[in-house]
Amino acid sequence: MLPLHLQPESHVPLYVQLRDQLRAMVHAGDLRPGDRIPASRELASQLGVHRTTIANAYAELESEGLIQGHVGRGTFIRSADHARKFTMPPPPAPDDGGSVRWESLFADERAEEGLHRLTRAVPPGTVSFVVARPDQDLFPLDELRTCVNAVLAREGTRILQLGASDGYPPLREALLEMFRQEGAPTSPENLLITDGGQQSLDLLSRAFLRPGDAVVLEDPGYPGAIAVFNDGRVRCLGVPVRSGNDAGEAPGFDVAALEATLAANRVKLILLTPDFQNPTGTSMPLDARRRLLEVAARHQAPVVEDHIYARLYGRTGQLPSLRQLDRSNIVIQIDSFSKVAFPGLRVGWIVAPANVIERLRAVKQATDLHSDQLAQAALAEFTRRGMLGRHIAKMRRVYSERLGVVQESLKRFMPHEARWTSPQGGMCVWVELPAGFDASELLFHVRERGVDFAPGRYFYCQNHRPNTLRLAFSGVEPAQIRRAIATLGDVLKAEMRKRQRVSRRAEPARVALV
Amino acid sequence: MLPLHLQPESHVPLYVQLRDQLRAMVHAGDLRPGDRIPASRELASQLGVHRTTIANAYAELESEGLIQGHVGRGTFIRSADHARKFTMPPPPAPDDGGSVRWESLFADERAEEGLHRLTRAVPPGTVSFVVARPDQDLFPLDELRTCVNAVLAREGTRILQLGASDGYPPLREALLEMFRQEGAPTSPENLLITDGGQQSLDLLSRAFLRPGDAVVLEDPGYPGAIAVFNDGRVRCLGVPVRSGNDAGEAPGFDVAALEATLAANRVKLILLTPDFQNPTGTSMPLDARRRLLEVAARHQAPVVEDHIYARLYGRTGQLPSLRQLDRSNIVIQIDSFSKVAFPGLRVGWIVAPANVIERLRAVKQATDLHSDQLAQAALAEFTRRGMLGRHIAKMRRVYSERLGVVQESLKRFMPHEARWTSPQGGMCVWVELPAGFDASELLFHVRERGVDFAPGRYFYCQNHRPNTLRLAFSGVEPAQIRRAIATLGDVLKAEMRKRQRVSRRAEPARVALV
Repeated sequence: MLPLHLQPESHVPLYVQLRDQLRAMVHAGDLRPGDRIPASRELASQLGVHRTTIANAYAELESEGLIQGHVGRGTFIRSADHARKFTMPPPPAPDDGGSVRWESLFADERAEEGLHRLTRAVPPGTVSFVVARPDQDLFPLDELRTCVNAVLAREGTRILQLGASDGYPPLREALLEMFRQEGAPTSPENLLITDGGQQSLDLLSRAFLRPGDAVVLEDPGYPGAIAVFNDGRVRCLGVPVRSGNDAGEAPGFDVAALEATLAANRVKLILLTPDFQNPTGTSMPLDARRRLLEVAARHQAPVVEDHIYARLYGRTGQLPSLRQLDRSNIVIQIDSFSKVAFPGLRVGWIVAPANVIERLRAVKQATDLHSDQLAQAALAEFTRRGMLGRHIAKMRRVYSERLGVVQESLKRFMPHEARWTSPQGGMCVWVELPAGFDASELLFHVRERGVDFAPGRYFYCQNHRPNTLRLAFSGVEPAQIRRAIATLGDVLKAEMRKRQRVSRRAEPARVALV
Repeated sequence: MLPLHLQPESHVPLYVQLRDQLRAMVHAGDLRPGDRIPASRELASQLGVHRTTIANAYAELESEGLIQGHVGRGTFIRSADHARKFTMPPPPAPDDGGSVRWESLFADERAEEGLHRLTRAVPPGTVSFVVARPDQDLFPLDELRTCVNAVLAREGTRILQLGASDGYPPLREALLEMFRQEGAPTSPENLLITDGGQQSLDLLSRAFLRPGDAVVLEDPGYPGAIAVFNDGRVRCLGVPVRSGNDAGEAPGFDVAALEATLAANRVKLILLTPDFQNPTGTSMPLDARRRLLEVAARHQAPVVEDHIYARLYGRTGQLPSLRQLDRSNIVIQIDSFSKVAFPGLRVGWIVAPANVIERLRAVKQATDLHSDQLAQAALAEFTRRGMLGRHIAKMRRVYSERLGVVQESLKRFMPHEARWTSPQGGMCVWVELPAGFDASELLFHVRERGVDFAPGRYFYCQNHRPNTLRLAFSGVEPAQIRRAIATLGDVLKAEMRKRQRVSRRAEPARVALV
């Protein structure tokens, strides 16, 4: 294994660090002509970075003539002669002052490594718990096709022409009617249509935050939120999300920790997911919701409620949302069709006080004019005809069953030193391995056996615990869930036995998971 | 008319300025109980601000009890008693510290007034030259419906599931094939799909620019670009776009002025539209394109080429794009389906060096994960089946005819002191009224006669010339074009006669257009 050490906190881009370290190893003779270097996927996994980082570094070394790829064989160090010939500066372009050094012009290097690290390709046949998304095999395709045809026939011209930045009117009406039916009505001036949850976070960041401002995020929480706020050079203050496993500990967002954070910092937004939180699956009890609102109002800190999983409740039913409990006009609620219908149609919404919506609408307009109207019109029809309600009811049953299988399999196959959350809905379960075990290393080994998951490190903004991982189960069928969790348990137990033998033989006991 | 004076440059939001001035007039007795104040539309037009600004100010005054609306009659000053009763602070909310003062939390007040000022409602029957967009009556609706059904039947599941942030693969392939056929090929790593031209500008701003950085914009130019860069607190340096009407003057972006700007400023991006520029309709001659690239390369300043109108050329055909002429790897090209197909489907693209695309892709992912896939799939099919090519060919003929009617009508009806550009394609003609005439005032009067256009002030980032206006003709049929331009000419000529009489009678001659 190459002795490479990347520093994610550095101002030097990761691919530049990698390129320079590899180049130094060639110059020092640690890598010699003909030596094979790891494939980008392999090295990415070893270093815990995205493949693009490796690919960028390799591309630069290749253009310098230091390395060369051979189809089917791998990537090799070239002869020194060749390298020297190619490290000359490139000849100037024929009739002008030369090409631009684009990298020197980028505003910020940090955006390079984002949540897309999670969307890597997996070998076919793998059971993937990686992405929290609907089961595509259960998409009601025919019903959606009926809706698309109905709206194109009835209002095609209007759909295809430039539209309004607050959203396509029939979708706005369908959503307002849905909120009424759900017992959480709102008014037109409190509603903005967006391109989905990610854009909602981005618009909020741009409307409220300047570089250096502070926001409170869940720790662990949604990586896309961390990406947005990093992009805006905003300070992210993590508030722990509790598993609810310890005695006397309420599951979910820790309101006492929030209070301490608000006392010590001027916080401009608090972002949290009271229902079936991503990645832990936990939900806040009713009294914690009330206390949260009271604390936030006292500190004049707006609360952004991510409501994206709330309709995916199980047998225990649904608690009132923060928006419903709000007496202080302090809550902004973001929501989307992505988890309850079709993530490929990029449509979400924000419910907020009218002056906030007006501000967000102006930002939205400067961002992309308005959201796609064919998707908006199709989802309006899908909602209006009751198809959305029926589909959600069906998916609640499907996901509840899968969640039951996850819980049952964890109990059956995992060593009793491991712990996990007990969600009542949503798409995710959060697992804590026994102390000292690293989920990234476990992943390395179970992937070879056809199981994939997201290690905890992607979800932390502050207090990273390496022994955690997320199982996003919504897209996996019960039999596969059982098989995959059995594999997880087997590998983990084997490793625990190995450690016990080692620790009996010799100190120190600290051995990496292999 | 109320003596109101708003200062757009102030840090105080416009609606707050307006609210405070109206309140002061009530307190001073200039407005008395029972007095009627103007409707928001009317006052917005008078002050040249968006209706929302007026609505926000009125909403606050209403909540203070100072004014009251009566359906069908208008808005009136309330009795002083009533006002006093309501200016008391609102009672605190029952069980917490009170509501949030949202306005005090916004990051920036400037975004409030954006290009949406252009999208006001117009009375039915009005001939509108306001928005540069396709003629919706000529949308090939049946063909698009065929495409939507074909892709949903063939690949519905893939379309509706979460996708890739660089774009839906079949659309990427269809675009690469189109570029090949057009003689301007590129590679997959040089292409990113976006939500349209506005988002492309936004992504570029976020990837390249920090607050205080400088960009070069066309003056006049696209208001959406000014909105994006204002939002990013970027310095906008205007380079004049020439009409080509003066002797020896080449039409389009002034390369000599650019050179002076680059010599005096560190510029991070140059944004321009070489073909059928918005709002002037002008195109840069070939030698100016070459000089521009040479100047930009010498100053290491990347060039963003807005290619959105380029396929809408008339009889004179198409000049090579900056991307095609680029020898220095210095050009980023942005483009979209909005002008050549359906603006309601939000899909555009960027062609750029691979490392720029990789950076933009990461920003795109943090912004909204990816673009809507139903729209992408439908447009891929529309392109692949040759329907896009045929539709563009048809629209070229339609818009060329309309452009001819605009030119002919201007010549026939406008006073000979007025001047206008002579585009060879695109969607816009730029008109200069005789010196001393204000297009906003002309607009006030022709609107009463059922004609609407965009006054020049929306398009300037620097050297505002009040006597200019844009006629966006693409959505208007020839007979309407003739009638509307005849109205413009009549009103203008009547006003010129009035001025001559006044100036014969008395000095000073400076009289506003009424």
